[in-house]
Amino acid sequence: MSDALLALHFQNDICHPDGRIPFSLDRHTIDATNFLDASKRALAAARKAGWIIIHVHIAFAADYSDLMRNCRLFLKTETLGALKRGSWGAAALAGFEPRDHEIVVTTNGNSSFGRTQLENELRSRGITRLNVMGLATQFSVEHTVRDAADIGFHVRLLADCCASGDVEAHRASLRTLAMLADVISSDAVLPAR
Amino acid sequence: MSDALLALHFQNDICHPDGRIPFSLDRHTIDATNFLDASKRALAAARKAGWIIIHVHIAFAADYSDLMRNCRLFLKTETLGALKRGSWGAAALAGFEPRDHEIVVTTNGNSSFGRTQLENELRSRGITRLNVMGLATQFSVEHTVRDAADIGFHVRLLADCCASGDVEAHRASLRTLAMLADVISSDAVLPAR
Amino acid sequence: MSDALLALHFQNDICHPDGRIPFSLDRHTIDATNFLDASKRALAAARKAGWIIIHVHIAFAADYSDLMRNCRLFLKTETLGALKRGSWGAAALAGFEPRDHEIVVTTNGNSSFGRTQLENELRSRGITRLNVMGLATQFSVEHTVRDAADIGFHVRLLADCCASGDVEAHRASLRTLAMLADVISSDAVLPAR
Amino acid sequence: MSDALLALHFQNDICHPDGRIPFSLDRHTIDATNFLDASKRALAAARKAGWIIIHVHIAFAADYSDLMRNCRLFLKTETLGALKRGSWGAAALAGFEPRDHEIVVTTNGNSSFGRTQLENELRSRGITRLNVMGLATQFSVEHTVRDAADIGFHVRLLADCCASGDVEAHRASLRTLAMLADVISSDAVLPAR
Repeated sequence: MSDALLALHFQNDICHPDGRIPFSLDRHTIDATNFLDASKRALAAARKAGWIIIHVHIAFAADYSDLMRNCRLFLKTETLGALKRGSWGAAALAGFEPRDHEIVVTTNGNSSFGRTQLENELRSRGITRLNVMGLATQFSVEHTVRDAADIGFHVRLLADCCASGDVEAHRASLRTLAMLADVISSDAVLPAR
Repeated sequence: MSDALLALHFQNDICHPDGRIPFSLDRHTIDATNFLDASKRALAAARKAGWIIIHVHIAFAADYSDLMRNCRLFLKTETLGALKRGSWGAAALAGFEPRDHEIVVTTNGNSSFGRTQLENELRSRGITRLNVMGLATQFSVEHTVRDAADIGFHVRLLADCCASGDVEAHRASLRTLAMLADVISSDAVLPAR
Repeated sequence: MSDALLALHFQNDICHPDGRIPFSLDRHTIDATNFLDASKRALAAARKAGWIIIHVHIAFAADYSDLMRNCRLFLKTETLGALKRGSWGAAALAGFEPRDHEIVVTTNGNSSFGRTQLENELRSRGITRLNVMGLATQFSVEHTVRDAADIGFHVRLLADCCASGDVEAHRASLRTLAMLADVISSDAVLPAR
Repeated sequence: MSDALLALHFQNDICHPDGRIPFSLDRHTIDATNFLDASKRALAAARKAGWIIIHVHIAFAADYSDLMRNCRLFLKTETLGALKRGSWGAAALAGFEPRDHEIVVTTNGNSSFGRTQLENELRSRGITRLNVMGLATQFSVEHTVRDAADIGFHVRLLADCCASGDVEAHRASLRTLAMLADVISSDAVLPAR
């Protein structure tokens, strides 16, 4: 297996206390702190292990002309004025900035695969297994894991490096995804050294 | 809005008491009976309303050479010897047989959109809204709804016409999908006459 | 390299003297006879060599409701009344019938990859190189070769097993595709035994 | 019809006299000058007309780790050291710089549609017709037109705003594409004012 780490949506509007989207992460809990700490450790360990690192960012045009207006989730993004391309809110959260040689995939949907370059980035490098972390668990993370499984990739979902503002949905998501991926602790996969 | 009804995986191995997959539907419950009855009524009403009807069937080569061997769900299909193309198990459940002019999409994955003709079938006919029913809720139904939302379709999920052998996962799925689709009773959308 | 043979559009309306599409193959020439003979030999040799065989058929609903009405090529198909699903015209030309265990991919577009199961069929079987034959060279064959190259497959185009009613376009196509595929004689790849 | 202008690969390595790719444009001919002038006029007129403007750039990682090594065309890009992301060669040619609110799609393949956000950008804005210009005609332009036609878009190919270092291939391409698009002069579509 050749591994890549997929880091989904570690962006200010989604993770930072001043970010515009409140429902992706309950910022003031110890769980949120643990999630961000575990994710930083996993990122550091994956870099040390020489894995391909792929950052996926979701962002929209400033006038939301590329936002699908077909469902509550997308409409809410517009109402909140969140994730405008080039804004502070769409930028990487401190500690999750992509490095020069790392891959950045941008999307305007929930799946990291739907109409993005992600599959080409993976196939051209011979990647066969994705290690996924990020948020929100039941939206972008789950959709990305589902798409990866459907097109043949092996997936490990780093459970402690996923989060959602809706803890119940987060848990249900991990439970269902166990049929499509290895749901596993980041420490088991990427021991800190 | 121009509507289509998407009927997912009403196949013997998945729904029939003698079918090989036990976890998609708990056949001997009143809930299962209600689900199948509601789905038949919705199909009849959609036909009466002149909607485009699309049946999605999942099936694999007899030697499973086209089955992805990357996760528990697909591997289980092979272990159970289920859904072999051309077999009784892969055929439509009685009452859900596609009619001559209706569309049949075949897939070897969970999403009805991933690498199938479905999107072309919809775009060529100017369909803008999908009404989705079928099983299992948290696998094929959910993945299909997610993909539809991500590429701009309006989606109504007919809640009483979805089912799963795992009731808890079914409920969690409906709850999450309410952000991506209108989760609604079939009677509200397609009144029987 | 693991090889598959892709046989495109060997269907009555496209190849048979009584078929409805006149511009895909100039039936009454010696070139047409040679093309069909070479293609049959290649199919037999590929079967003998144990390659995966994939037949791609193009077909439309009887009312052409799934036909894109955006360009001359598709509109012409409708005017000619060609390639209706289930008709004699859409069926395999004698000598090119798919065998039981062989793969059949159906499409309503020029590319064999665009919104079909083809890529999943290839990835699930670990195929890395496509050997392409069929017609018309400058439409379906060329589009399929282009798509295959763009997503990382190695492609061999069996030059003597491709044809078009427009010889000039056929030649220009082979010339351009030499940058994307190995344009080669079928004998060099699949020696008859 | 709602129109967009698609401007393909107006980048230094491909168009500038000091660019690294020699075969995309024969820079020192009057035809090259005319092509660039006509393309600038079309871009200005499309902006004046209020069309959506989409720039498509092709670029690769500095180490070409995302380059498919399956065919001559891609391998040549590496040999020439061309189109490295972030380099002068991959940047927009003077006169073709994207403006702030315009869309930029980046690809590592020939088609502008294959695994990019392009289709989502178009669908979310209700675009139904693409007006395509750029180079090289027989590679990226042709592949993009083919893909657009296959998924239902109406296409106008601005013939005087397309170019290739291989004039014969350029002409053959326009001739074949007339079945899939309206091949037309930019003046007929976008009169300069």
